[in-house]
Amino acid sequence: MKNVTVALDGNGGDRDALSGIARAVRFAMTLYPDMRLIAFGARQLEEDLARAQVLGPRCEYRFAPLQIPQDEPPRNVLCGYSQSSMRKAIQCVKDGEAQAVISAGGTGPLVVLSRHILGTIGRMRPALCAKIPSGSGRFSLMLDLGANSRCAPSDLCDFARLGTAAGRLILGVSEPSCAILNIGSELGKGNELVQKARVLISARKKLHCNGFIEANQLFSGDSDIIVTDGFTGNIALKAAEGVVKVFFRERGIKRYFAKLACPEWLMPWQYNGSLLLGVRGNVVKSHASAKQEALAVAIVEAAKAVKAGLCDAMLEDPLLND
Amino acid sequence: MKNVTVALDGNGGDRDALSGIARAVRFAMTLYPDMRLIAFGARQLEEDLARAQVLGPRCEYRFAPLQIPQDEPPRNVLCGYSQSSMRKAIQCVKDGEAQAVISAGGTGPLVVLSRHILGTIGRMRPALCAKIPSGSGRFSLMLDLGANSRCAPSDLCDFARLGTAAGRLILGVSEPSCAILNIGSELGKGNELVQKARVLISARKKLHCNGFIEANQLFSGDSDIIVTDGFTGNIALKAAEGVVKVFFRERGIKRYFAKLACPEWLMPWQYNGSLLLGVRGNVVKSHASAKQEALAVAIVEAAKAVKAGLCDAMLEDPLLND
Repeated sequence: MKNVTVALDGNGGDRDALSGIARAVRFAMTLYPDMRLIAFGARQLEEDLARAQVLGPRCEYRFAPLQIPQDEPPRNVLCGYSQSSMRKAIQCVKDGEAQAVISAGGTGPLVVLSRHILGTIGRMRPALCAKIPSGSGRFSLMLDLGANSRCAPSDLCDFARLGTAAGRLILGVSEPSCAILNIGSELGKGNELVQKARVLISARKKLHCNGFIEANQLFSGDSDIIVTDGFTGNIALKAAEGVVKVFFRERGIKRYFAKLACPEWLMPWQYNGSLLLGVRGNVVKSHASAKQEALAVAIVEAAKAVKAGLCDAMLEDPLLND
Repeated sequence: MKNVTVALDGNGGDRDALSGIARAVRFAMTLYPDMRLIAFGARQLEEDLARAQVLGPRCEYRFAPLQIPQDEPPRNVLCGYSQSSMRKAIQCVKDGEAQAVISAGGTGPLVVLSRHILGTIGRMRPALCAKIPSGSGRFSLMLDLGANSRCAPSDLCDFARLGTAAGRLILGVSEPSCAILNIGSELGKGNELVQKARVLISARKKLHCNGFIEANQLFSGDSDIIVTDGFTGNIALKAAEGVVKVFFRERGIKRYFAKLACPEWLMPWQYNGSLLLGVRGNVVKSHASAKQEALAVAIVEAAKAVKAGLCDAMLEDPLLND
């Protein structure tokens, strides 16, 4: 097995999350023994990593004191922040030192910098893609989850292509089926965006269009790939998370029952780490509020993407080179 | 206590749901002893009602054989279907025979016919509004849930007005707070629609704008009123339902634990019956797939809306008469 090197943006995420990064790194290195990490961050991170006893041949620290505010305008992101951990971590992938980058920083800056530094596949707009659990050991891929809050029908079609190409590898399905998230499954339902997207996706012979899917079927596994604009996708997934949180918000015996009741494959902390598909490199976005276990899961997702050769496979997929 | 009369569209909903209508009527009449029902439907409904032993002074059957397909174009809905149970039930409210109508039929036809027959409040576009549980005995109101799949910023502002006026009565809060569903809570987040809507809603002194809310906070109760376009709202709520269904999809002991774990106030079957706000009459929409208990809950919601004087209060609310 070849070694995998992951670059970590150590300034991303909420303040609470930052304090748990070193422990997340330790946890991830245990989960995935073939992984090397390069952690970019402020001096505090170096101290934390030293205290967690992870610094050494498998984990290197590099100084990068700046954090990019998540609502920083793209122009500022592109022109400045040369000392930011996010920029340095992405550059590290571009330079070939690492094969993937993981960040819990703002989606906006992460997308802008990834596009700029790594470049895109074709002219597609990159999209955030999550593994949606749909049964024990089964998944669907859903995209976009917030990289693009305004989308044209052609973007949704591109998302279908990206998702299908990624799905072959991640889901192990040679011809993944693909559905569009909508408010009804009938042909005439929904807005212009989904109507036109359906026409475009159906017209492509290499895509296997399943038509529309409603949000209450997201976890049913009826479709391998689910495409939607970033605004809707983000809200659908967060609404689902919100409900699971309600179950686990209860205290005492109810909380215990929730753990017993929750299908193992739905356990919320298992899911973190969305892939930014459509850029020329493996980029993984972690929740800004991810606790240490969740961040560790996302780091491992990044390593797995490298191991599977995700980005290389996508660059060679004829579907994305039409 | 004055009697309440509810007109029931007995041809709405899925085929499975139709067979349970008579039992739902019986259940609703038990739950709400002061209610009279006028049930419109095909002959089969009359037989079912007779078999359920509910026909009598409190429940009257009227012949209306037609069902309006849920994707029927508005023009056809408006020009035809004089023998449809939906049209007859709404007309029954217009004629003053009933004070509310309940239907599990298509959202499109229901909105079109309600606007046409009952008229709208001001020039507002009617919106579907649901009670979102946010704790034991606590609720928020969320709208729109699918009456309008394309919205302008001014529509979202109207939804905030409608929700606020309804919230005074339903939530018992004199000055309900109001938030806009978005993909982030920061000022610059989201698309043009929510950005412009925020400006409009903030500018109205009679509304108490809380800014943006993320979908994972929907059930937190942080805001009394949550406004969104009908496409996003529909998807957010269905995604949440989808997850709860997953919990209850498990079999055997896990399903039992799910019942124990689920906070009582979140029990999914308790929630059915969205109010169509903005029309001059009490109109309640039930899930097309609602089982008998859920349909009974929606019928009772309609009766409660009448008892609370919801529509009259909204017609007189100065907020809606600016």
